[in-house]
Amino acid sequence: MSAVGEFELIRNYFAAIGRDGSGSVRLGVGDDCAIIAPPSERELVISIDTMVEGTHFLPGTAPAQIATRIMGAALSDLAAMGAQPAFFTLALTLPESNSDWLQSFSAALADMAKRYGVQLVGGDTTRGPLTISIQVHGWCHRGKALRRDGAKPGDRIFVTGTLGDSRGGLESIQQPQSTGYNHHYLHQRFFEPEPRLDTGQIIAEFATSAIDVSDGLLADLDHILQGSGVGAMINLDELPISEALHHWAGEKTSRDWALRGGEDFELCFTVPAMLEPKLNWALREHNVAVTCIGQISAEPGILLVDDGHVSAVEPQGYNHFPG
Amino acid sequence: MSAVGEFELIRNYFAAIGRDGSGSVRLGVGDDCAIIAPPSERELVISIDTMVEGTHFLPGTAPAQIATRIMGAALSDLAAMGAQPAFFTLALTLPESNSDWLQSFSAALADMAKRYGVQLVGGDTTRGPLTISIQVHGWCHRGKALRRDGAKPGDRIFVTGTLGDSRGGLESIQQPQSTGYNHHYLHQRFFEPEPRLDTGQIIAEFATSAIDVSDGLLADLDHILQGSGVGAMINLDELPISEALHHWAGEKTSRDWALRGGEDFELCFTVPAMLEPKLNWALREHNVAVTCIGQISAEPGILLVDDGHVSAVEPQGYNHFPG
Repeated sequence: MSAVGEFELIRNYFAAIGRDGSGSVRLGVGDDCAIIAPPSERELVISIDTMVEGTHFLPGTAPAQIATRIMGAALSDLAAMGAQPAFFTLALTLPESNSDWLQSFSAALADMAKRYGVQLVGGDTTRGPLTISIQVHGWCHRGKALRRDGAKPGDRIFVTGTLGDSRGGLESIQQPQSTGYNHHYLHQRFFEPEPRLDTGQIIAEFATSAIDVSDGLLADLDHILQGSGVGAMINLDELPISEALHHWAGEKTSRDWALRGGEDFELCFTVPAMLEPKLNWALREHNVAVTCIGQISAEPGILLVDDGHVSAVEPQGYNHFPG
Repeated sequence: MSAVGEFELIRNYFAAIGRDGSGSVRLGVGDDCAIIAPPSERELVISIDTMVEGTHFLPGTAPAQIATRIMGAALSDLAAMGAQPAFFTLALTLPESNSDWLQSFSAALADMAKRYGVQLVGGDTTRGPLTISIQVHGWCHRGKALRRDGAKPGDRIFVTGTLGDSRGGLESIQQPQSTGYNHHYLHQRFFEPEPRLDTGQIIAEFATSAIDVSDGLLADLDHILQGSGVGAMINLDELPISEALHHWAGEKTSRDWALRGGEDFELCFTVPAMLEPKLNWALREHNVAVTCIGQISAEPGILLVDDGHVSAVEPQGYNHFPG
């Protein structure tokens, strides 16, 4: 462990991270501001996410896991807009300048940045309790960004991947005696969320609304419903649940986590029924599962259909400051 | 004191802050991302700043003072690029949801946002040790952003306002017995930095380089010198020092703070000698003092001229993680 200075820190660890797939960055790290040249006919979409030691991760969590988790979570917001990722900034507050920690953190961040086509263009490094904020920036075709307010009655509701795994991962971490493939899989799903950026850009042509599942399916779907002034009917049998989660937690619990567990960072989106064939065609060679789990209704609220039985359910999610 | 929930918190305190003077915001707070439509022929400039309780301000500092200080510091980076401010995001980490604190903080933030023409378009609120990151975004005419790498030998060096006041304010806070006008003035200069946004936009037509004085004049000027591959000669007699600082700290100390005190958030910029008349004409009705303090030289390093005597000086500034 050795201490490094602030300028040295930026130069050594953060000056050359990632690449901007859109080619819009004119000037990155090193001046008062970064300079970005917007591509023509594009709109900029931006989102900022914060993770705090003791709130979002346990003290002693591996820096690479922190990096992949916050970067995955932040990029997931770009995916939910159907955006092409471009660049990001990093506000890093550290209790001490530890070169081992910085090496692992910045290497994992660089891997993610390269993989998803985002370039680090600026940031601030300060001393204090470990807190990380990342702001991500992407480009959408003008007027094509996926919002929460466009769902219409009759639209089909889709989700990507499988749900509830992240909650399963969190629970499995808290049971250190748990081992084996299922444990490893859930653990990875928790620490290495895969932002559905490609899926988001494909569905941008068809979807009437989209959101990423960060607070839990019901809570996030409810944001779409409130924003669009509609309701929804969900078929419990259709919820995509991984074999690992099903095996590890059982049917009842895994279903509950699929509905209410947060931080899956899958996409939930709506598509008009008549566009479903086009959607399926567009996704024919796509390597992420997309599952229809229900449809939008004119009546407000969420109905769950379980083996033919219909019941109303309250959306519930995570709230950092419960009232 | 009462606790409020996360969504309520955003809705009550942060949903309708400021206005975007450039009219580029399509969608603000409330979706996965904000959506921005870039004005034609403009480039985006962005900068993020963090302030941490115990590092940048004392525990118990008034929330309004925290808000004006971080917002002033952040906007100062836009000023140093010659940018028109447009919008900002806020990552707010709070130990508890205290409505009195939030009310004061958000009101001061809203005042600053309205005054300088920036709209809050997104953020993240989390629980943890008090930490605030603000990312500001502005627009420059294409290719006209002021950088650090354009200073040429012979260019005149200018600074706005007066230097050293912020350091004086910090020292005066630590002497609670200190009172009176000078104390009040320096205190205000520390807590309410005025980002020189108008000045920045005016000089963008003439300046070859610019930076804001955050680490201290010598340290920040040195960033320009390093970036441009040049040196500088500074006339100590020309350093603009407020009467309040001169009176409170004496000539020797106030001069030292003007050279090395950080966080003045004035602009330091260079202009070709032949454009000085044009600059003066453009500034003829401008209400911020702009003072020529020296000139750029071909030889690296900084020389100080004091009553005809020339001496070399090491640039020194603030470093959060001294090596």
